[in-house]
Amino acid sequence: MDKEKENRVSITVIRRLPKYYRYLGELLKKGINRVSSQELSELTGFTASQIRQDLNNFGGFGQQGYGYNVEGLYYQLGKILGLDRTYNTVIVGAGNLGQAIANYKGFEDAGFKVLSLFDKNPKLIGLKIRDIEIRDVDELEDFIKENNVEIGIITTPKENAQEIADIYMKSGIKGIWNFAPADLKVDDDVVIENVHLNESLFTLSYFLKNKSDYVKN
Amino acid sequence: MDKEKENRVSITVIRRLPKYYRYLGELLKKGINRVSSQELSELTGFTASQIRQDLNNFGGFGQQGYGYNVEGLYYQLGKILGLDRTYNTVIVGAGNLGQAIANYKGFEDAGFKVLSLFDKNPKLIGLKIRDIEIRDVDELEDFIKENNVEIGIITTPKENAQEIADIYMKSGIKGIWNFAPADLKVDDDVVIENVHLNESLFTLSYFLKNKSDYVKN
Repeated sequence: MDKEKENRVSITVIRRLPKYYRYLGELLKKGINRVSSQELSELTGFTASQIRQDLNNFGGFGQQGYGYNVEGLYYQLGKILGLDRTYNTVIVGAGNLGQAIANYKGFEDAGFKVLSLFDKNPKLIGLKIRDIEIRDVDELEDFIKENNVEIGIITTPKENAQEIADIYMKSGIKGIWNFAPADLKVDDDVVIENVHLNESLFTLSYFLKNKSDYVKN
Repeated sequence: MDKEKENRVSITVIRRLPKYYRYLGELLKKGINRVSSQELSELTGFTASQIRQDLNNFGGFGQQGYGYNVEGLYYQLGKILGLDRTYNTVIVGAGNLGQAIANYKGFEDAGFKVLSLFDKNPKLIGLKIRDIEIRDVDELEDFIKENNVEIGIITTPKENAQEIADIYMKSGIKGIWNFAPADLKVDDDVVIENVHLNESLFTLSYFLKNKSDYVKN
C-alpha cells in the first residue's frame, strides 16, 4: 500500500461528516455550546468511540472531560467539507427534478448557488425558477466559462448524461453531481458524486424483504 | 457476535446489488447471454473477486469457466432485491421533488406504483401529475388502509417529516423512503431508506477540496 493510500480517509468516514455537521448545526441553533461524544452518539446513532475516531482523522477537536465545543467543531467540520466558501453551479435538465434542486433554498444557504438551468426543450427555455433562468443547452459551454462555474449538476435522462458530462469537462468543470441512472466516464481529475434513486429504492425493497439484514443508517 | 448478526449480509454488499442488477439489465437489452466476473468488473468498476464474493452471499450463480448466465442472474438478483412483485406507494409532499418522483416512469416500470400524492396546500389538491391525483393530507391514513399501500415516500420540508412518518406507521406502512433532511424516529419493524441530498452535495465539495481522498464510487 503506497503512502497516499495509507493516509486516505475512508469513504465511510467521509460520508458521516455531513451528518455530524447537520446535527451540530441543529445544536447550535438551540444555543447548546458543548456536547460530549456520548451525546453525539445518542443523536446520530453512531457509537461514541466511532465518533471520536472519525473526528480524530482530522485533528483533535475534543477535550477529555469537556467534550466538544459545538460552534468550534461546526466551523471546523464546515471547513473540512469545503463549506467555508461558495460555489457557482449549473443544472442541465430543467424537468421536475432539476427544478426541485433549483427551487431548494437550502443548497444556496450552504453556499451552492445555481446560476442557471439548461434544457433543449424550447417550451422551457426562457422560463424562470425563482429568479433562475432556463437557457438553451447550446449556450452551456460559454456560460460555464464566463461565469466561473465549478459544479455541474445533471438531471437529464440517462441517454443524455454522458454528453453533458463531456461538455462539463470540456468547459473545465471538476465536480459533477449526477442524478441520471448511469455511471459516467470522467477524467481522473474530475470528481463525480452520484445520486442513483433507483438503487436507493431497490435497497429499500431488499430490506423490506430481508428485514434481518436491516441496519439503521 | 450473535448468530443473526453473523449471517447478516453487509450493507456495502447490499448497496452494490442494485448496480449489478442495472448492468445486467443493460447487457440483457443488448442481447448478451453470458458474462464473466472479469467483464462485470470492467463494467462496474468493482474487482472480479469482489463481484464473485458479493454474489456468493446469495448462492452460487456462476460456473467456473463459463461465467454467469445474464438472464438467470438478472432474474435471481431481481428476486433477491424484492423486484419480482409490485408495491403500492404514496408520496407526501407534492412540490417539485414529489412531482419529479411521481413523474418518473422508471419506478413504475420496476414495480413501484405511485397511487397518489398528498399535500396540505389547497392550490395543489385536486391537480394531477400524469394520471396521479394530489389529495389532501387529511385523507392519507384512510387512503393507505384502503389501498394496501406498503411504501410511503416523504418529500416534505424537514419540519413535517416526522409527523408524516408517524401517520405512515399508524397506518401500517413498513417501508419509508425519506427525502427530508432529517433522521426520523421509527419503530423497530419499520425500514427506512434516506436520500439526504445535502449530505451528498457536501461529500462532493469535500472531494473537490480533498481530491487525494477521492475514490470512484
